[in-house]
Formats: sequence, C-alpha cells, structure tokens
Amino acid sequence: MPEKTLAELNNCSKADFVAALANIFEYSPWIAEKAADARPFSGVAQLFAAMKAAVDGAGEELRLALIKAHPDLANKTQRDAGLTAESNAEQNSVGLDRLSDAEYEAFERVNNAYREKFGIPYIVCVRRHTKDSILRDFARRLPNDKTTEVATSIAEIGKIAALRVDLLVQGEHPLKVHGRLSTHVLDTHSGRPAAGIAVELVELSNLGLSRVIARAVTNSDGRTDVPLIGGRPVPIGRYELTFSVGPYFAERNVPMSDPPFLDVIPLRFSVSDPEGHLHVPLLVTPWSYGTYRGS
Amino acid sequence: MPEKTLAELNNCSKADFVAALANIFEYSPWIAEKAADARPFSGVAQLFAAMKAAVDGAGEELRLALIKAHPDLANKTQRDAGLTAESNAEQNSVGLDRLSDAEYEAFERVNNAYREKFGIPYIVCVRRHTKDSILRDFARRLPNDKTTEVATSIAEIGKIAALRVDLLVQGEHPLKVHGRLSTHVLDTHSGRPAAGIAVELVELSNLGLSRVIARAVTNSDGRTDVPLIGGRPVPIGRYELTFSVGPYFAERNVPMSDPPFLDVIPLRFSVSDPEGHLHVPLLVTPWSYGTYRGS
Amino acid sequence: MPEKTLAELNNCSKADFVAALANIFEYSPWIAEKAADARPFSGVAQLFAAMKAAVDGAGEELRLALIKAHPDLANKTQRDAGLTAESNAEQNSVGLDRLSDAEYEAFERVNNAYREKFGIPYIVCVRRHTKDSILRDFARRLPNDKTTEVATSIAEIGKIAALRVDLLVQGEHPLKVHGRLSTHVLDTHSGRPAAGIAVELVELSNLGLSRVIARAVTNSDGRTDVPLIGGRPVPIGRYELTFSVGPYFAERNVPMSDPPFLDVIPLRFSVSDPEGHLHVPLLVTPWSYGTYRGS
Amino acid sequence: MPEKTLAELNNCSKADFVAALANIFEYSPWIAEKAADARPFSGVAQLFAAMKAAVDGAGEELRLALIKAHPDLANKTQRDAGLTAESNAEQNSVGLDRLSDAEYEAFERVNNAYREKFGIPYIVCVRRHTKDSILRDFARRLPNDKTTEVATSIAEIGKIAALRVDLLVQGEHPLKVHGRLSTHVLDTHSGRPAAGIAVELVELSNLGLSRVIARAVTNSDGRTDVPLIGGRPVPIGRYELTFSVGPYFAERNVPMSDPPFLDVIPLRFSVSDPEGHLHVPLLVTPWSYGTYRGS
Repeated sequence: MPEKTLAELNNCSKADFVAALANIFEYSPWIAEKAADARPFSGVAQLFAAMKAAVDGAGEELRLALIKAHPDLANKTQRDAGLTAESNAEQNSVGLDRLSDAEYEAFERVNNAYREKFGIPYIVCVRRHTKDSILRDFARRLPNDKTTEVATSIAEIGKIAALRVDLLVQGEHPLKVHGRLSTHVLDTHSGRPAAGIAVELVELSNLGLSRVIARAVTNSDGRTDVPLIGGRPVPIGRYELTFSVGPYFAERNVPMSDPPFLDVIPLRFSVSDPEGHLHVPLLVTPWSYGTYRGS
Repeated sequence: MPEKTLAELNNCSKADFVAALANIFEYSPWIAEKAADARPFSGVAQLFAAMKAAVDGAGEELRLALIKAHPDLANKTQRDAGLTAESNAEQNSVGLDRLSDAEYEAFERVNNAYREKFGIPYIVCVRRHTKDSILRDFARRLPNDKTTEVATSIAEIGKIAALRVDLLVQGEHPLKVHGRLSTHVLDTHSGRPAAGIAVELVELSNLGLSRVIARAVTNSDGRTDVPLIGGRPVPIGRYELTFSVGPYFAERNVPMSDPPFLDVIPLRFSVSDPEGHLHVPLLVTPWSYGTYRGS
Repeated sequence: MPEKTLAELNNCSKADFVAALANIFEYSPWIAEKAADARPFSGVAQLFAAMKAAVDGAGEELRLALIKAHPDLANKTQRDAGLTAESNAEQNSVGLDRLSDAEYEAFERVNNAYREKFGIPYIVCVRRHTKDSILRDFARRLPNDKTTEVATSIAEIGKIAALRVDLLVQGEHPLKVHGRLSTHVLDTHSGRPAAGIAVELVELSNLGLSRVIARAVTNSDGRTDVPLIGGRPVPIGRYELTFSVGPYFAERNVPMSDPPFLDVIPLRFSVSDPEGHLHVPLLVTPWSYGTYRGS
Repeated sequence: MPEKTLAELNNCSKADFVAALANIFEYSPWIAEKAADARPFSGVAQLFAAMKAAVDGAGEELRLALIKAHPDLANKTQRDAGLTAESNAEQNSVGLDRLSDAEYEAFERVNNAYREKFGIPYIVCVRRHTKDSILRDFARRLPNDKTTEVATSIAEIGKIAALRVDLLVQGEHPLKVHGRLSTHVLDTHSGRPAAGIAVELVELSNLGLSRVIARAVTNSDGRTDVPLIGGRPVPIGRYELTFSVGPYFAERNVPMSDPPFLDVIPLRFSVSDPEGHLHVPLLVTPWSYGTYRGS
C-alpha cells in the first residue's frame, strides 16, 4: 500500500480520500466519509482524531457492525477466504500465519469461546502483542461482561486504526504509536564501551517456539547501529537478550578462567509498554555484570 | 562400600588393609600393598601420599598396566561385563549410564580414536567433569604425544584415587578434594536478604539435554540451607542458575509493570576449578540486578 | 571494674551481690537487692530480667528517683564533682569528655532546656549513639510531654543497665546488646577478593570534627581481620568508609588513566540499628564500583 | 574580546587580521602575520593549523622568544604590571587570582625553581588544569632537560593558542578543544530516571580549599539540563560529585531506616582527559548504589 502525504489527502477529492482510508477501520469506509468533511487537517494526529470522533459519535448498532467487520485471529478459513491486506499484514507480523498445531488449537479455542460468549469476534491490536501476550489478554478478558468487551473492542480497534494511519499517511504531528528497545554494553573492566559484541534478541514463548527477532553487533559506542526494535510498537511479551562477552574478552587477551566464567550472558525481561522507550544495558567484566531498566 | 576409619586401617592386618584399598587404584592391589608398610598414618592425606608414592616409584611397565586396568568411558559392553563398583558409581555420577544415542556415539568416537592413537584407554577423573567438559578434554588431549598422555593418565588416576580415598576413609587431615557452589540473594529494593526465592541449578549441555541438578528456596538469610553443590568436586562445565524473583516481589506488593520487567532471572556461568569455592550471588530489585564471582 | 562470672554472683553473699551490681542502675543498689532474692539465675539474660522487673515493679516515686540519680550529659561541674565509674566511661566512649567549645555549648543548651521543661535530667544510652545522634534525639524528645519522657528515660536506663551488665557479668545466655559493622572488598576486575586495601572508618559530625575510629587493611579474603566495629553497639550516626583502591590496582599493573579515575573511594552511610549486623561491601574495578547494605 | 567570524578574518585587511590575532600567541603578532598570507581559510581548524605551522617553522631563537613572552603563573608583580587580557582570564579561570597564602607560596616556589633551572618561565595550558594538577605537572617536568622542556613549552603554547582561537573565531571546522562532564541518576528502586535530585560538583584540592564549581537538579530524564562542565576543557584534577538521594526517596515515601542508610552520596573521581566526554552516572536505591565511567 503506497504511502500518502497529508497534503495529498487534504487536497484530493472526497471519493479519493475515502478510497485511501476505507480500511483504516476494517471494511468501514463510512468513517473516512464522516472525517472527510473536517478537511483540511493540520496534522496526522488531527486526521486520526476526526476518524476516531466519527466512531465515538456513531450509534451502538454501527459500532457493533464495526466490531463484527473484523476477522477472527488466526482463522484459517477466513484467511483462505481473504482478509483485508491490512489484517493480513498485521496477523503475519505476530506470526499468526505460521502457527504450530498446538498454537493453532490454542487460538481456535480462544476465538470460539469468546465468540460463543459475546457473539462478536475477539479483537486485539496484534502489532502491540506477541502470541503469548494475546493468549494472556484473552484469558483476562473472557470473564468480562459484554458491555466491557464492546468498549474494549472499540478501544483495540482504535489502536489498530492508529497504526494503520501511521503506516499510510506522512505528515506533521505524527501519532505516538512507536516504541523502542535498545541496549548498550559497557566494559567496566577497561572503562570503555564494548565494541564488537554479538547481540541476539529472542522472543520467548510458553506455547510454541522461541524465535530470534534481531541480531546485531555493538559499534564503537557499545550500542547497536539501530534499535533492536524501533519504528513500531514493541510487542508486549517476554524476551531474552544475549551478549557474547566471552569472545570479546578473549580477543582482548583479558586473563580469564578456562572455560571462561562468563561466555554468553542472557538477560530475560518483559515488555509491558509497547509505546515506551526501553533501554536494557549491560555493564560487564569477565567476572561480573549488571543490568537495569533504563530509558 | 562401608566407610573405614583411619584408625581401623592403621591397626588391621596387612591383608585386611590391602583388601579395603584394593580398588582405590583400579584393579591394582599392589599399590595398597606397598603403602601398607608405611603404617601408621597420621592422617588421610598421609595415607594417600604413600599410595601415590608407590605409583610414582613404580616402573614404566607397571604404570602402563595400571592405566590399562581402567575401563573405557561409557562403554556398554564393558558395563555389561562389569566395572568395579567405584568405576560404576563414578561413571553414573556424571550420567554416563543414561546417555542419549547422540551422546553415546560421541563418547564411542572419543574412546575409539584415543585408543587407536595411543593404545590405552582414555582416562579422566569423571567426578570433576560434566559430559560436555569430558568431550572438550578429549578434544584437547587427542593431539598430544603418547608420553604426555601417559603422564596425564597417571595424573587423572591420582585424582580418581584421591576421591575414592576421600569417600572410603574417615580421619584427620582429609584430602582437599571438595569444592562448593553457593548463592545468596540480596533484595536491594528493600535492603535485606531475599527469603523465599525459588532457585534452580541446571547443568547445561551442548550435546544432550540440560538437566536440573539442584532446587532450593532461599532462607531468611537469602542463602540456601545447604550449598547448591558441596561435599564433592564441582564438575567443570556450564551452568544456569535461575531465580524466581517475580513472585517474590509480587508477594510483597512491590509496584511492578504488568507483566513484571523481571520474572525468572537466569545467570549463566562456567565452573573451571572443581575444588574451589564459587559463590554466585544475586543483587536484585524489580528493575535491576547484578551478579559477580564471589568467594 | 573486674568482671564477675554468673556463678560467682549466684553463690556469693547477698551483700556481695548487691555491692557488685549496685551501679548497674546508677546509684540505685535497691534494684540489685530486689533481684538478689531471685537467685540462682540460669543466665545473664535472666539476671538482667530480674533487675528490670524490679524497676518495672517499683512505684512512680522510686522510678523518678532513679531517673534523677543520673548525671547531666557532658556537664563539666558534675564531671569535676565525680560521676560513677560507669557513667564516666560511657560519656568518654562517645567523646563527651573532649568536646569542642561549640559542642559543649550545644550540649549545655540541650541539658538546660530539657531540665527546665521536665525537671529531670536528659538521659540517653550514650554507648548506642554519636554526639550528632544525641543532639538529634534531644531535638525529637523535647516536644514530648512529661509522661512520655519518664517512660523514655526508664527505657534508656534499661539499655544503659543492659550494657553495664554485659560488661560486668560473664555467663550463659548473654544479652543481645552487640552490633557489628563489617566490610568486604571484591575486585571484579580480576574476579577475586581484593587483598591489601587500606580502609578507614570515619565518624562524621555536623557540629564538631569528624574523627577516624578504625583503620584496617583487607586480608586475602578481602575482609578485615576483625569487624570495623564489634563487641559493642554500633553507635547511631553518620559514617564514611574510605578504600584506597588506586594503589591497589597500580601495584597490580592494571592499566589506568593518569591520574587514576578512582583513587580513594568514600562510602557515606548511616547506622540506625546499634544491635544489628551491618555489612557494607565494595565491588570495584578501576572504572566502576558499587555497594549495598548487606547482612 | 568580541568574537570574529572566520569570514570577517578571511576578508579583512592584513593589518586587521594581525591585530585581531596578535595575542593568540602571547605578544607574538609575527605568527598571525605569517598565517595571513595563507588566507582564505576553509575553517577554524585550517586557520589554527597555519598559525601552528608558522611556529613550527620558526628558528630556535624565535621559539625561545615566544616562550619568554609568557608570564609566570600566579606572579603578583607581573599581574600588577599587567598581563595580556587572555593570560589574565586564563589564570583567573583556574583561580590563580585568589590563591591562599600557602598556595601562593607553592606556586612561587614552582616558578622560581623552574626559571632557575631552565631560564624560561614555566608554561602550561591552565584551562586544561586545576591548581593541584598544575603543581603535579610541575613536579613531573622539573627533572627534565632543557630540550625536552622547550618542546613541552611549545606544545603547551599550542594548546593555549588553540583555546584562544576557539574563543575568538566562529566558523566551520571548529577546533576539538572542548570536553564534557555529565551525570545521570537512575532510581533502580522504582525503575525510572530520578528527577529532582540535588547534585553538586566540587573540585577537590590537596593544598588549598575545595570549591563547589557546579550545582544542579536532575530533570525528568534524571539528567542535568546542561552538562556539569561543557563548552570548554574539563580540567585535569580530582572531583567529588554529591547526590542528595535521602530527600528524594523521603519525598516519595519510600520506607527507609532512621536516619536513612544513604543520604548524600559522594562519588570521588579524577579527570585525565580534558577533551574527552566523561559520564559519571549513579544507579541508586535507598540501600545500594553503583557508578561507572560512562561515555
């Protein structure tokens, strides 16, 4: 989907505007139609606010229709029948297109139980989540009543829409929907940033397989050239960050035991705020290390 | 094998002395015979020194015979045919009686390659090792020449014998063949030892499966009631020590993120000195932690 | 004052018992007299409990007389006229015999204000305090009403008496009136205890001069051979512990900047629990350090 | 002295150029004269290089005259007679205009001993130093031979000149003569930057009085709004940075001992590289802290 500038959207015909934004809210062009009348927008945030206002001002029935326009998560039949390109990309981003059998069953159980109880699909902004945290979110929401879940669904749809707007529209006042996960290795044995350390970020999973989601080598400042995760939400979930410090110290001829006391150091932590800036540094000697949640 | 006191061994008949110590050096009662004449011994260390002197004073042929009296590591045929009780217990201690197929093949390759090159069995004091470190030791020794390997084998046999003496004989001046691995958790969030933390020690393996070798809960002093490993050598190898700090802080109603930034903290380290005292403490808050090689 | 064994006190005449313990409570032999009847005591704690019970069971007037039997703190006239040997030693222990003029005036102000408001001398167990903490204690207690202060005075007299009993009587079940302040230096640059580090403990003072109260050099275990403070309460107050790490690393030819980034490291902390065990370790490289309240 | 732009200096008359830069090298306009012919300069660094080349290309006699054109450090008679505005400002920056009597004598001893041995004034780039480090530098240089000291003097004059150029001339390619000293406080008790912490930077002195050279309060990012030292060299010397963490935790109702274990935390360190970026962070809970040389 090619990006649009805010200027283009401010200046094009109403029909083109609606066409461009038809699927910001899943299969619901009426929202873009309402928002079109508020043009021109001074920024992306203002455009999104107008669309959000259209949803908030809609009647109960329309809101329910919006909810029902969404597909089930990880539903193979629906996937075969075709999702919006947006839904498809989102579900793939969290790995819902390549579930193990056990995972597939777990998601199907979730969807069915939810739909049976509430009569609406389970909706969550998957780009802010890992598979594990989606299953955890479901377990928390299932005991709710329907009013709560309709409200929660609308809120999640808002988050989905914000990320779709952010991907599609370039302009002033961007939406604050990105987080960042970064690291920094400080060699406190020799009092300088540790350059050349291999770093690996693994998304941990209770249910399925853990998977490596970033690999990098620290630069002369002890940092990675780009954040481990950036330019998007940092999915809620559990992670393990590993640092190959054994080879680093060995190359510098630092006296060590054999085998080295520390070789690959794992830091295991959870992300809870997808839009936050999470900095997880490592302070290390061949005989000690420490970490903390930085910012 | 029932324990003996040094006094008993000092005062019994020579025949009984030799019978009791016949397998301190594998199938080699002549060593105990030589040592018997030096009785009485003022301590266990002196007894062992006399036996060691007998080995060191023996001719080349006798030393070679001593080496050849040892079984191959993890050799199923030999195991079926019967090992000394001592060899059997030692090999079992490191898990050589329950190898996976891949491991069994790796050990067989080692043994065959070694025997083929040197004409003697590969000997190592297995109680000081993990399976991984044995394979690493083999890889280091295979390039050696035979003279070096005969000397190394005699040295390893000495270590095996020292541990057998230590297990069998009680008395003054015990041999220094024990190491210790301990931990300590300090809650630097509230400035006190962290009590009630579940701790797990895993022996890591490259080849086969990692296995839990100790579980404990920290006491009011933030320590485990007994060392994680103690009263024996701490096997050379890689370990992971995990601490369940998430539940600890949750029970104390410490404000945390959801999910908690830190939940199960892994410390991964290697042991290089089986007879040393290795202390691996954890200093922890819900947002930071550190460790170091203590003593 | 020569020490007595509990056995001696259990077996001597009542007159000798009372004579020996006459000044455990300042100029108040009646307390020892009452306690004498409860002999024999199974331990020092039981002896002290009997004396404490005598105080607690006495009438208001007698308790007030006990309070008034105490001297003012740091009162030169009274010092010249003569204190009990016990009071004298206690006041000297905290330095009340060598006050600067400013300090002397501060204490005189305290005493006079207190005596004027309550009609009794200000009593505090000085062995549990530094000069600064006494002045702070006074400032806290002056706003109280008389009932509170009588109770507080009796409590402080009890603490004074417990320390006098502990100094005088040897026996089973000693009183728990000792604290401990210790340190430990770990060289995390080379992964071992730091031996040979010069350590200095300074008692800080707001009013007068700070004074060095202990000097030591770390041993091969990175500890001092004896605690910095031990065998007595650790006085409430502010302290600075300094570690000469620059010379330590220089002697080991560790590469450093010139001048070294770290040379003499000060740790500044307060003691709040005189009977507790306070451990203040230092983890250090030439480029980093850390400390924590250990136990 | 009003700043010039490089463009102005490139385009003005030779006479104006020389006048503007006459005292970049103390009382030595001939250097500016030589450099004038190389105009225009593409940057400040190129201008400085041209002046430096003029010095390097000059004969021994001229270089000696340049050295002798410099005043003694902290010489009252010379100060009364008048220094160049540049020398005056430089000497004041390090406090040479307000020495204690003991310091004044120490500097006079230095100057006289040096002048007596070498027949030239002792020259050092004072903006890169503290009083203590100047005396230390002198003690190191006095044993040298004259050739070494002439070379050292010319090198120091170069550093002085570079800083004068940096102050005077604005333009592309600025000289790299600035360092930075910064800090950062991370509250690892609650996992966030510590805002509102009072910070004080003291320059320590062996000889005279220590003096506070910066005061700040940490902002919401746990940093100071501007570096503690920036926009100039960070003088070689010993420093103490203090952090008032007691009030910070007290305001947040964090449970603490009374008095608080940690109140004002001092970090004592030395600066060795005036043009470097030195970052000295504090990671702190009410019961623990750590620091390291960051970058």
